[in-house]
Amino acid sequence: MGKHIRVFAPASASNLGPGFDVLGLALERPGDVVEVEARDQVGVEIVSVTGAPSLSTDPTTNVVGIAAAAVLKRLPAPRRGVRMWLHKQMPLASGLGSSAASSVGGAVAVNELFDGGLSNDALVECALEGEVVASGTAHADNVAPSMFGGIVLIRSVEPLDLITLPVPATLRVVVVHPHTEVATAEARQLVSEQRFAIGQTVANLGNVAALVSALHTGDLALFARSIQDALVEPIRAPLVPGFNEVKAAAVAAGALGCSISGSGPSMVAFADSDGKAQAVAAAMQDAFAVAGLASDPFVGPVNTRGAEVIG
Amino acid sequence: MGKHIRVFAPASASNLGPGFDVLGLALERPGDVVEVEARDQVGVEIVSVTGAPSLSTDPTTNVVGIAAAAVLKRLPAPRRGVRMWLHKQMPLASGLGSSAASSVGGAVAVNELFDGGLSNDALVECALEGEVVASGTAHADNVAPSMFGGIVLIRSVEPLDLITLPVPATLRVVVVHPHTEVATAEARQLVSEQRFAIGQTVANLGNVAALVSALHTGDLALFARSIQDALVEPIRAPLVPGFNEVKAAAVAAGALGCSISGSGPSMVAFADSDGKAQAVAAAMQDAFAVAGLASDPFVGPVNTRGAEVIG
Repeated sequence: MGKHIRVFAPASASNLGPGFDVLGLALERPGDVVEVEARDQVGVEIVSVTGAPSLSTDPTTNVVGIAAAAVLKRLPAPRRGVRMWLHKQMPLASGLGSSAASSVGGAVAVNELFDGGLSNDALVECALEGEVVASGTAHADNVAPSMFGGIVLIRSVEPLDLITLPVPATLRVVVVHPHTEVATAEARQLVSEQRFAIGQTVANLGNVAALVSALHTGDLALFARSIQDALVEPIRAPLVPGFNEVKAAAVAAGALGCSISGSGPSMVAFADSDGKAQAVAAAMQDAFAVAGLASDPFVGPVNTRGAEVIG
Repeated sequence: MGKHIRVFAPASASNLGPGFDVLGLALERPGDVVEVEARDQVGVEIVSVTGAPSLSTDPTTNVVGIAAAAVLKRLPAPRRGVRMWLHKQMPLASGLGSSAASSVGGAVAVNELFDGGLSNDALVECALEGEVVASGTAHADNVAPSMFGGIVLIRSVEPLDLITLPVPATLRVVVVHPHTEVATAEARQLVSEQRFAIGQTVANLGNVAALVSALHTGDLALFARSIQDALVEPIRAPLVPGFNEVKAAAVAAGALGCSISGSGPSMVAFADSDGKAQAVAAAMQDAFAVAGLASDPFVGPVNTRGAEVIG
């Protein structure tokens, strides 16, 4: 019997306030597990998908299959084939980078299976082929952190230019996922139709620059002042029931800042200790409950390992 | 005879590619000199202005007088008065922060004269009162570097939030001023009328974030990739005769990057050695000459001292 590879690919929170499409970070949990082994026929077979009944096992429409096929295409001859199992362990359309995690898991697992040695950039490009299908555009702010861990700055997608930023030791991330859905493609459509005034743009330029500086110096007070989004949050906030109340609750409970995670409906907040992070999560859940939504909290440090082979 | 204070306030280059209204740096030269001494009557008198025949000695319209009056208003009682001399040592409407240098010189000199001890933020606010008159809006990306030196990030103007960024040791700045004028207020009007697509905005978010990271790590290759402006440069480039040719000449001569300095017509480029900086300046001057414009080069490290009392 041949090699059997299992890969855990973490969820991620993108945008982080001012950094629309350019900043993302990896979470300790949740995350998807992708299993893969070689098969005799060329091409990709998805044997099963657990945890997400709505997802297809058609490898040309499921992102895990698309990313796997992209890796196979880049491997040196001979042409090969894989059999895959996808264990979705996080909600779809949640703002947690669900499609990115599956894409990353598929790409990393297949590369690992065949000792493919694809470069980091090539692996990201393969995972992005899945992400394009899921969201309509190739943005790497979930794929890159899910693959490499940490807080990643995507300076550019074409050409791909990724910068891993320092993670302050005491920084804690709180993501709260309310039980409702926001379709990523529709949320992106709202943004792409918009035209922005220079004042909004300047506000985000200042805040994203300050946020990066704060990460380099570990200045969490500056980090807190910088978690502001004048561009996209005003457009997307109405898609998240209870947004204003949840954000206010997070800040009142001691959060360094709070914004939408990706295209929502999950919201992400930051704290400077485990205790405060737990309090912030509880306050955010209470506020979602008032808005009529049950929710799941994910609290922890930034995941600095990224996708990894597991036993 | 009472105290007589002389202050040198340096020119500055703002925007630095992607950082419209949020980034600026101070130059070693040129710069304005402001002299001030106390007088018996309250209020401001501008005795003379040298170097700029078009500038008024009316203290309510010359920025040096406006900034001086703003400082006088904030000083503790009794109400005081000053007599001032402004020595313009740089061109107006040049993209070199000329009005900011005069404003900073006026504010710093009056504060120094009366041992006023105004906070840094208060001094910036006083200088900004002059800047508003000159350009129509309170942007601090020339005032802040002229006052404090270095490379300054303006996260926010209201409330004022300034961050001084690290300056890589080998970084050299090249500013070339062609003998033509761009009216700052008109150049700003062009930008404020514009509405921007999200793609342009994301490009600048990624580049300004990467530029800040590059300054923190001293990574001049990343710095070079980040000196790109998808927002404002395309609008303002047509105001600068020979823009495309000057930029291409700078890059061909080894510049790390090249863009418009402030609202132009000066252009700013960067290099990683004195020798390359000189070569870049010469290439830019040659390209301006082909466009029919004589020019002045200013080459050196970033001025990290800012405004200072001189003998």
